[in-house]
Amino acid sequence: MFPRGARVLVALSGGADSVALLHILRELEHTGELALAGVAHVNHQLRGREADEDEAFCSAMAADVGLPFAAGRVDVAGLAQGTGRSIEDAARELRYAFFATAADELAADAIAVGHSADDQAETFLLRLMRGAGTRGLAGIRPRVGRVVRPLLELSRDEIRAYVSGRGLPFREDSTNRDVAIPRNRVRHELMPLLQQYAPALPAVLARQAAIARADEEYLEAQAIDLAATIVLRTECGIEIDAAALRTLPPALAARVARQALGATAAGRFIGFQHIERVLDLASDGKEGETVALPGQQATRRGQRVLLSKPGGEPFSNFFRFSLSIPGEVACPGWTISAEKLETPVEVSSRPARGDEVVVAAGPLLAPLAVRSRQRGDRFRPLGMGGRGRKLQDFLVDRKVARSERDRLPLVVDRDDRIVWVVGQSVAEDFRVTEPLQGVILLKARRLGGVG
Amino acid sequence: MFPRGARVLVALSGGADSVALLHILRELEHTGELALAGVAHVNHQLRGREADEDEAFCSAMAADVGLPFAAGRVDVAGLAQGTGRSIEDAARELRYAFFATAADELAADAIAVGHSADDQAETFLLRLMRGAGTRGLAGIRPRVGRVVRPLLELSRDEIRAYVSGRGLPFREDSTNRDVAIPRNRVRHELMPLLQQYAPALPAVLARQAAIARADEEYLEAQAIDLAATIVLRTECGIEIDAAALRTLPPALAARVARQALGATAAGRFIGFQHIERVLDLASDGKEGETVALPGQQATRRGQRVLLSKPGGEPFSNFFRFSLSIPGEVACPGWTISAEKLETPVEVSSRPARGDEVVVAAGPLLAPLAVRSRQRGDRFRPLGMGGRGRKLQDFLVDRKVARSERDRLPLVVDRDDRIVWVVGQSVAEDFRVTEPLQGVILLKARRLGGVG
Repeated sequence: MFPRGARVLVALSGGADSVALLHILRELEHTGELALAGVAHVNHQLRGREADEDEAFCSAMAADVGLPFAAGRVDVAGLAQGTGRSIEDAARELRYAFFATAADELAADAIAVGHSADDQAETFLLRLMRGAGTRGLAGIRPRVGRVVRPLLELSRDEIRAYVSGRGLPFREDSTNRDVAIPRNRVRHELMPLLQQYAPALPAVLARQAAIARADEEYLEAQAIDLAATIVLRTECGIEIDAAALRTLPPALAARVARQALGATAAGRFIGFQHIERVLDLASDGKEGETVALPGQQATRRGQRVLLSKPGGEPFSNFFRFSLSIPGEVACPGWTISAEKLETPVEVSSRPARGDEVVVAAGPLLAPLAVRSRQRGDRFRPLGMGGRGRKLQDFLVDRKVARSERDRLPLVVDRDDRIVWVVGQSVAEDFRVTEPLQGVILLKARRLGGVG
Repeated sequence: MFPRGARVLVALSGGADSVALLHILRELEHTGELALAGVAHVNHQLRGREADEDEAFCSAMAADVGLPFAAGRVDVAGLAQGTGRSIEDAARELRYAFFATAADELAADAIAVGHSADDQAETFLLRLMRGAGTRGLAGIRPRVGRVVRPLLELSRDEIRAYVSGRGLPFREDSTNRDVAIPRNRVRHELMPLLQQYAPALPAVLARQAAIARADEEYLEAQAIDLAATIVLRTECGIEIDAAALRTLPPALAARVARQALGATAAGRFIGFQHIERVLDLASDGKEGETVALPGQQATRRGQRVLLSKPGGEPFSNFFRFSLSIPGEVACPGWTISAEKLETPVEVSSRPARGDEVVVAAGPLLAPLAVRSRQRGDRFRPLGMGGRGRKLQDFLVDRKVARSERDRLPLVVDRDDRIVWVVGQSVAEDFRVTEPLQGVILLKARRLGGVG
């Protein structure tokens, strides 16, 4: 699951699953497959003294196994209140953000978290009840960016047996029993009920999730290729070729529409009802008909569906397009292409600066995307250690004109990590160290007369 | 949902759903869109006097609306005992077989049955708990062959409201409350429980099923095209090109393997565990390694996986290959192709006998398959009325040599209805009546020196 010789940061809540994870990885370390870089713990500051005790417990356990300890305190309630999101959503975002920072500081290539097959099954049911489609049922992924979930195929019972078999101490989170939290209701009420009907249900659902994931990966890859010709960026905004969309099988039409909406929704939730509105507009919308969507609107214009800001103003700055490998995408002023090099390259012959660069395929999670910068972007230029720096500061240093910054294309991976700041630098994380392991060639071509 | 001007047979159990169906279609009849051909009722003979009363009730209701009534008595317990299948499975098979016979006798083009969105949601949960994959989650299809389900998007509550609003009488099946039957347990126990968590669950699940259906249709079509080159029939049996299978995305590899197993499983259930065994054999089986599968075995031979009868004997007689439109497939001694004609044809210029025929696209349900005959095959040759006849008798009449009969290719549709007995006759059900409605051209080419 880990890149060979990876430096791994272990996320430790203090619960039995993460305690097992830490000790299993500590054992694996002896094989030389990986090295532990440290232990990270997030105090969500939601449970007062109990949370402080958890933090102390984790700190002691890290010392016990002889690893550096990184503790983060995050303001979950503040983020939830400020954004109207659920406590669970806000906690998840802040937790993973802290893990990423800690991994940078401890120079870790991977972040191991302790999700089990039971977590997978619970997620499946939660999403099923919300109506999440194949995409949602795909559930928790074994690997997303640097985050790796080594226990995802083990049941909670198996993990508990490991912990108790070794007499390892662990903490019980008192809120785990709070059935006001949807996941706990599923875990403690719904799943046991369902298991009266189907005793092996958690394993069955984990398998369903794996099947959905395989389906979704293939269908999404197909949709990305199609979107490159069906979803176009013009001076009016994002345009969808309605005639082309109508010719697609429904499974692909829905995913191409989702790609288009995702290009401008900037993180907002795109539901099936939104996709269906766009498909309806493409199939039998009247000229000028407009529907409201999250963060945008869609309007029928001739044989096109035009996406623009609510009110009709074009999306003038932000853009985001998926880039398949191999593939090519046009963004304002540039075309960007990606291809896998099958033969080993002379890395030294390919500079990291310029319009043609090579990056390591290993750490990179497909699909790639090309997007413009957004607030909060961080970047670690080639050769720089530590946790990276603000992209804004990097662009200032590199003397990129203010007027250029918003249209400068960034190549990012599925996890939205910046892979290449076009024309400036590839990221240290994607530096080619072992050319034999697989290399992606990225090329940028500036379109004549623009920018 | 119905072909324009269709003659529809209504399946009537006497329950509220089918009573609503009958009356809704009776109202629709006034629009001229369809004509009712009659009412069919199956007495499963499992509930003694109650079942007889249901039959009398349905007979009276048919008379009341002025329609012919066809009642069938089937031996569910006998079939279940003889085959080891569940009562529900056996009842379903016998029920639909009777509906098909009744439709033939009443010259009906379509058979309407009363499944609701709640039935769809229950089926989804039942299959989910069994671990049915995307294919299983696709649930009840709105249309399969002649069977049409006009109420599939209405909830049971909406249907009941229609029935009580019009003061229509209906029967309550006492076994509907028997929670020893899995479907009833889902309906009366599990679904109400789940709705405490997600009140709109039946509608959500019906939508998930529709999404799974769209995904599955596309993926299955892709797999059919791939199987044409990856799954080969040789004198040793069915062979899968293991090297080609390994290069496919997992979503397609699993479906191509399923196609291969389905070619010889002759109706047996193919589960994910079986597919995985074949994929494992293709990816890292040792030379000669053999695994047991339903009705067959798989053996690794060089870069091939060979499917044969348990014990290793080749499948000498039966074959079945999917045929996409457009597409071509090789079967022993023949190649068969299908393509959609885009321009209207002079039907009279295309004989129904010979090696090149046209059939109506409307009633035909893709994907097609080419298979050899099997016991119980029935066929209604062009121009023949009534319910068709035994294929065996037809072949005897046509003086097809006994030695030829097992290798004669039949083109069938998804519902396994015979579309074309190659070289002999197309089926009356697929006769081209309105060339403008879409026509499929089927061609057969006999391979030199064989047969």
